[in-house]
Amino acid sequence: MSQESEFSGGDLRDTGMALKHDREWDYELERIVEAVEERDAKKVGLQFPEGLKRRGPAVADDLRDLLADDVRVLISGQPCYGACDLDTYLMRRTDVFVHFGHSPMKESEKIIYVPLFSNVAVTPIVEEALSELAAPEEDPEVGLVTTAQHMNRFDEMRTFLEERGYEVHTRRGDDRLTHEGQVLGCNYASADVGADQVLYVGGGKFHPLGLAMEHPEKRVVIADPVNNVVTIADTETFLKQRYGAVHRAMDAETWGVIFCTKIGQGRWEVATDIVEENENAYLLTMDEVTPDRLRNFGFDAFVNTGCPRITTDDGPRFHRPMLTPGEYEIAVGNEPLDSLSFDTFHGTW
Amino acid sequence: MSQESEFSGGDLRDTGMALKHDREWDYELERIVEAVEERDAKKVGLQFPEGLKRRGPAVADDLRDLLADDVRVLISGQPCYGACDLDTYLMRRTDVFVHFGHSPMKESEKIIYVPLFSNVAVTPIVEEALSELAAPEEDPEVGLVTTAQHMNRFDEMRTFLEERGYEVHTRRGDDRLTHEGQVLGCNYASADVGADQVLYVGGGKFHPLGLAMEHPEKRVVIADPVNNVVTIADTETFLKQRYGAVHRAMDAETWGVIFCTKIGQGRWEVATDIVEENENAYLLTMDEVTPDRLRNFGFDAFVNTGCPRITTDDGPRFHRPMLTPGEYEIAVGNEPLDSLSFDTFHGTW
Repeated sequence: MSQESEFSGGDLRDTGMALKHDREWDYELERIVEAVEERDAKKVGLQFPEGLKRRGPAVADDLRDLLADDVRVLISGQPCYGACDLDTYLMRRTDVFVHFGHSPMKESEKIIYVPLFSNVAVTPIVEEALSELAAPEEDPEVGLVTTAQHMNRFDEMRTFLEERGYEVHTRRGDDRLTHEGQVLGCNYASADVGADQVLYVGGGKFHPLGLAMEHPEKRVVIADPVNNVVTIADTETFLKQRYGAVHRAMDAETWGVIFCTKIGQGRWEVATDIVEENENAYLLTMDEVTPDRLRNFGFDAFVNTGCPRITTDDGPRFHRPMLTPGEYEIAVGNEPLDSLSFDTFHGTW
Repeated sequence: MSQESEFSGGDLRDTGMALKHDREWDYELERIVEAVEERDAKKVGLQFPEGLKRRGPAVADDLRDLLADDVRVLISGQPCYGACDLDTYLMRRTDVFVHFGHSPMKESEKIIYVPLFSNVAVTPIVEEALSELAAPEEDPEVGLVTTAQHMNRFDEMRTFLEERGYEVHTRRGDDRLTHEGQVLGCNYASADVGADQVLYVGGGKFHPLGLAMEHPEKRVVIADPVNNVVTIADTETFLKQRYGAVHRAMDAETWGVIFCTKIGQGRWEVATDIVEENENAYLLTMDEVTPDRLRNFGFDAFVNTGCPRITTDDGPRFHRPMLTPGEYEIAVGNEPLDSLSFDTFHGTW
């Protein structure tokens, strides 16, 4: 990206590059204050995802100004990577618990979800992405997905594409997703539509990489309004890395089978089924799955039944191969190598 | 240490150097099996401290052999640094929960504590340490302390010293400690005895460093039977580092005040008192206190009301100064610089 585009006006005015340093979020403080007053709450817990933790103190300040003096505001210092990853300790010990930056995975009276919709414009980058989509006269069918941050402009994206002659396919996915067209790092059911090409609108490569892995038969065009780039999702490196891990794990004698204790990341049956069928497999329970935590155990390989993105994206950081449950079945010879597929997560908790 | 000593026989036969690779621990499997059968337990949770996690799978194997087929064994993958640090998630979800390697901080029907006493001999190294103690004719008073691992030989140590003419001073400390003469990384009340010299028998420098910090008026002689060395605790580097952290924190405008959610590490009043008196202080809740977790917040400095050893020993690893509650009072000008003292932890939970 040229420096020019960063400073030029016109269509780029509202893109992520221009708004980089003054993106504004609506923390919905009034809704929080209302809940505190309604419940006569004395303790308010706030949880932010990693990228927004820096804003925590200012949000706490604003809330403290609005709330009675005897209301205590607590900020979660636990890592947070999604709506699957609630700080249940803080949630149970506060009267009002606010989770910022993710849409509800499951509604609960106890939790106030503040989604934090982005104010970056999306149509300029969608327009740029048209050059990577098949022209409507060739193939008018296009799937459309985005992340929670840009859901507020989903209709705008859809209308823009329709006005250019596309037939836009969208669906809600499953229980784990709040909105039509929404994807999560672990769930791409919303892209399960009758179109060979899918347009992903959103920041980064994390989501579209999962999308392309889960739907290898589709062409995934990435329109990134935050970094102002259009690219095509490429899963080759990713796939090579996964096959490499599976091959290395084939020699494993002992297996650590991770059951993740995070509220939305538990797959108890998947984990216990493996341990029951393999006497050299051991059940390990933990919340954060990190290289440090696994290094102290002497296992030859690991199966992670928690967040699939730790397995696939962070895999190379671990000292031993770490596989998804499906990859494990291949490594121990229960399934053929070509059954390798992306590990997705369904349901809530 | 010379290689010679590692391979020589005689007095070194049972020291840590000789036993390094075949130290044996009594995992008290029978006691565990008995509890499982008594409670008709279906889920057994095992928690090991970091240094013993590698033994987890073998212990699980032995237990699986002894237990009925339908009993599931789960191993905690959470970090564990003491009896203050129980995996409460696993504890609540298993019928029998076994905590290895630490003596009880608080008795509970739910928890089986297996202390894992060391089989290294202690008298050879205590004998060597005599040269660093004042001779009994000069000063017969000596305090004696050790860690949970060597408690099984505490009487042996005491007798050895008494036979050489010393008057051995010991005490139980407080509620946080199980045994007479026992020290923890955060509690040296057992060394609060009427003697100017204290003999610490145990592995590593972690405990004696805290001991010397907490009792700066005493000479602390370290008899380390695991590494087979005798040294004198030296707090100078440590003190310089603490004064440095306090000075750097004096410029801080905003403070993150950490309340640790680990069962035996919570000091709620200490944390909330600070936040109530300083409007630029914010309450953060977390279990593991790590550099990564604090980096995402934009605070100028931190006060850690959790484990004091993270603050003092790991302090330099954090990107901003992290202080103990007492050091915080100095940094903000409530207390004079010479009030700096070691942060200790009392009570249970």
